[in-house]
Amino acid sequence: MKHLISCKELTKEEALNLINTGFKIREALRKGRKKFTALRGNCVVNLFFEASTRTRTSFEKAGKFLSADVINISASASSVKKGETLIDTVKNLDMMHPDIIVLRHACEGACNTIIPYIDAGIVNAGDGCHEHPSQALLDAMTIIENKETVEGLNIVIAGDIVHSRVARSDIILFQKLGANLFIFGPSTMMPRYPDALGVKVLSSFEEVAEIADVLILLRIQLERLNAKKVFPSLREYSKFFGLNKKRLEMMKKDAIVMHPGPVNRGVEINNDVITSSKSVIFEQVENGLAIRMAILTTLCNKKEKLLEEIDA
Amino acid sequence: MKHLISCKELTKEEALNLINTGFKIREALRKGRKKFTALRGNCVVNLFFEASTRTRTSFEKAGKFLSADVINISASASSVKKGETLIDTVKNLDMMHPDIIVLRHACEGACNTIIPYIDAGIVNAGDGCHEHPSQALLDAMTIIENKETVEGLNIVIAGDIVHSRVARSDIILFQKLGANLFIFGPSTMMPRYPDALGVKVLSSFEEVAEIADVLILLRIQLERLNAKKVFPSLREYSKFFGLNKKRLEMMKKDAIVMHPGPVNRGVEINNDVITSSKSVIFEQVENGLAIRMAILTTLCNKKEKLLEEIDA
Amino acid sequence: MKHLISCKELTKEEALNLINTGFKIREALRKGRKKFTALRGNCVVNLFFEASTRTRTSFEKAGKFLSADVINISASASSVKKGETLIDTVKNLDMMHPDIIVLRHACEGACNTIIPYIDAGIVNAGDGCHEHPSQALLDAMTIIENKETVEGLNIVIAGDIVHSRVARSDIILFQKLGANLFIFGPSTMMPRYPDALGVKVLSSFEEVAEIADVLILLRIQLERLNAKKVFPSLREYSKFFGLNKKRLEMMKKDAIVMHPGPVNRGVEINNDVITSSKSVIFEQVENGLAIRMAILTTLCNKKEKLLEEIDA
Repeated sequence: MKHLISCKELTKEEALNLINTGFKIREALRKGRKKFTALRGNCVVNLFFEASTRTRTSFEKAGKFLSADVINISASASSVKKGETLIDTVKNLDMMHPDIIVLRHACEGACNTIIPYIDAGIVNAGDGCHEHPSQALLDAMTIIENKETVEGLNIVIAGDIVHSRVARSDIILFQKLGANLFIFGPSTMMPRYPDALGVKVLSSFEEVAEIADVLILLRIQLERLNAKKVFPSLREYSKFFGLNKKRLEMMKKDAIVMHPGPVNRGVEINNDVITSSKSVIFEQVENGLAIRMAILTTLCNKKEKLLEEIDA
Repeated sequence: MKHLISCKELTKEEALNLINTGFKIREALRKGRKKFTALRGNCVVNLFFEASTRTRTSFEKAGKFLSADVINISASASSVKKGETLIDTVKNLDMMHPDIIVLRHACEGACNTIIPYIDAGIVNAGDGCHEHPSQALLDAMTIIENKETVEGLNIVIAGDIVHSRVARSDIILFQKLGANLFIFGPSTMMPRYPDALGVKVLSSFEEVAEIADVLILLRIQLERLNAKKVFPSLREYSKFFGLNKKRLEMMKKDAIVMHPGPVNRGVEINNDVITSSKSVIFEQVENGLAIRMAILTTLCNKKEKLLEEIDA
Repeated sequence: MKHLISCKELTKEEALNLINTGFKIREALRKGRKKFTALRGNCVVNLFFEASTRTRTSFEKAGKFLSADVINISASASSVKKGETLIDTVKNLDMMHPDIIVLRHACEGACNTIIPYIDAGIVNAGDGCHEHPSQALLDAMTIIENKETVEGLNIVIAGDIVHSRVARSDIILFQKLGANLFIFGPSTMMPRYPDALGVKVLSSFEEVAEIADVLILLRIQLERLNAKKVFPSLREYSKFFGLNKKRLEMMKKDAIVMHPGPVNRGVEINNDVITSSKSVIFEQVENGLAIRMAILTTLCNKKEKLLEEIDA
C-alpha cells in the first residue's frame, strides 16, 4: 500500500490489517504509551483546504506519537490565495521530501488528480462529497470492537446521504466486510439511485429500529438547512429524523449508535442519546487516533517495526 | 495538583513550589540548556479560542523544550465553527489521550465547566474576565526575583481592573502571599465593591507613587476605548493614568514597574518607562516560559525527574 | 555569521560556503536521510507577518529535520492585532530564548530595525520590496547545479523588477558571484535608475533569447494587475512578456528557466514551459529546503557537527 485514497480501492484484507494494527496501537495508548520511534526520520504533511479539528488533530497526533516530523498547512495561510493551482502546491511540497501528504480538499477526486505528479504517499482525509476512508476504517474498527464482526450486520446510515463522504466510504467498506446496508432520511437527502450503491432505503424510524444492529447518524450541515425554503428545516429534521431517547428505546437491545462528529446536539441527536450506553461516539474518536497511526505506519512500510516496538 | 484553574484554589505552598521550580528552570535556560526529556511521551494540547502570541508561544515552547508532543488548535480552524459545543470539542480531544489541555476561552468558568468531562489535566490560560493563574505566578516570580518576597509589599494595580483576568488572579495570589493590594484607575474601570476583593482604591498618582513597592500596569484595550462616548478616551487615559517619566520619578527608588503585555506604548506606558531600570517587563516574559515549564512538569508528575535532569 | 539579512552584507565566500553545505545536505536528503540531531536543543521561531506556504514550510521542515524546536507564529493570531509594535513582539519572543527568528514582514528594513533589540540570530525571509536572501542563495545553488558556476553567465530577470525582493537579492548576489545581469519587462515595472543597480534593460524578447544563459521569471501579482487602468493588464502581460513554448524555443539550447513560485500558469509562464527540460523550477524548491538547513546550521554554529553527522 502506498496511498489511501478510497475504500473502493482498498481490499478487505488491507482493511482488516489496518484495523488489527489499530487495535494493537490502541491497547498501547490505553496503557499510557504515547511515544514510538517507528516513524523517526519520516515526514508527514497535513494539507487541509477545509477547516477541521478532529481529523487534522488526529493525524497530527498520530504522526507525532510515532516521532515523525509533522507539518501543518492550512489553505488560509497558503499560496493558493496567490492563485497557485492544487497540483503546483502539492508538487512543490513534494520537492521537500515528505513521506506522506494527508490531504483534505473541497473537490471530489482531488487526491487522484495529484498522484501522478508526486512521489509521496497520499492519504485522503476527505475530498468533497466523495470519500473519507480513514473515517470508514475507524467506524469499522468501532463496530468490530462492539459487535466482534461487521459481517452479516444490518447497518443503517441516517441523514444527508447524498452529500456525505462519510456515508459513501462507510457503505463501500462495510459492504466489502459483509454487512447489509440501509439508509434513512428526508427524500431530499437520499441518492437518486440507491440500488446502484447496493443500499435499501428505509421509510420510517420504526423500520430502522426493527432492523438496525448499527445506526450511524450523519452531521446535519446547519448552514445548508438554515437557508430559506429548503426542506427540511432544522426543526423538521429534528422532529422527524433526530434520534431522541424515545426512539433510542425502540431500537434493539444490543444496537449501537455512531456519529462521525462534530455532533449538533438537539438536531440529529439528543443529549441523552450521546451519553446513553448504546452510544459509542467517543470510542470512535479514540479509535480514529489509533487507526491513523496504523495508516501512517503501514504506508511508510514501518508496521513491523512499530509492532515490535509495542511488543518490546 | 492535577489542574491549574484559578489562584483561588491554589495553596500558598503550591504557588511557592511552582515558583521555586521556575527559578531552577530559568537558571538552566540562561545557561543555554533548552532541551529536557522529562515530558517525553506526554502530550500537551494548546486550545486557544482567543488570539494570543505570548501565552500560546510560551506554553508551546515550554512543552517542546520538555520534549512533550505539542498540538496547537485555534478556534478559527476548529469545529466550533460547525456548531460544536465546548464540552464536545474538549471531550473529543480528551479521547485522543492528551495529558494536559491548555485552554484560553472568552467565557468565565470555561475550565471548570469541562473538568467533569475529561481525564486530562487542565491549565487555564485565561477565561474571560475571570482568571489567568500562570500570569499571576510569573508576576509573583518576578516580584520575588526583584524584592526577595511578596510578603508585606504594597502592590498597586492600575488600569481596567474590572475587566482584567490578570488583575483578579494577581490580587488573589498576592494576598495569599501576604501583600497589601491597591488599585488605581478611572472610576469606570474600578470594581463596584473593592472591599469584597480586599483591595483599597487609590485616587491620585501621588498616592500610588508614595505607597507602591510594585506597580502593575494593565493593558488598555484599544478597541474598547476607541468606541465613541466612552470615558476615558485614549488621550484622557494617557494624560491622567498613563505612566510617563515624570510620574516614574515620583515613585520610590526601589519600586518596580510591571506589565503583562502586550503594551500600548504611549497609552498606559511611555517608551522611556519601558526601558527604565525600574521596568521588569521583559523579565516577566522570560519568567513566563520558566513558570509554564514548571506548571506542565508539575501537573504531569514529572517535577522530580526534571530537577534531576537539571542537576545532572 | 550571526544573521542573514541581505545579500548586500553577505560576502562571496559566505555565500559559496552556504551553497556548498546546501549541496551536501541535499545529497543526504536524496538518499532518504531526513533526520539529523545537529540542532537538538536549539529553537527556531518562524514569525510570518505575510502569508507563505513555500518559505514558511521550507524553514519549518529545515528546523525539524535538524531536530530543532520550531515555533510558528503568524500575524493573524498574534498580538500585533492588539496594537503591539514589531519591536515589542520580537523582543518578547527573544526573552523566551530562541536561537533564530525567521522573519517575514511587509516593511522594508524590518529585520535591521529589530537587530539592536535582541540576542537571537535573524533570518530575513522577505521584507517588503527589499530583500529575500535565502531565495537568492537557492537560486544561485540551482544555477551552479546546472551551469557549474555563476561566473560570467548572462542572467535575465523578467517581470515586476521594481516591486520584487527576489529580483533585488538575486541581482546583488549574482553580481558578487560574477554574473552579468539584465532585466526585462513592461516599462511600468522597471526601476527608474537601472544603472544604479548595475543591470542593463533589454527591450524585446529577441534580445532576451539571444543573450540569456539563465532566465528568471518573477511572479506577477494578480491583485495588482487585476486593478483597473493599470498597464499592462493580465492579458497584455501574458501576450507581450509571458514565456510560452514558441519563445522558449528561441532561447539558447542550454539555457535554463527559473521561477521563485508560486507560478501563475498562463500569465508569466505557460504550462508547457514548466514541464520543459529547460525548466528547473522544481529543483529550486528542493534546493530551498537544503539551503535553509545550511543557513540554520551555519547561524547556530553547528555546521561542522552536521557535516560530521552526514559523513558518518
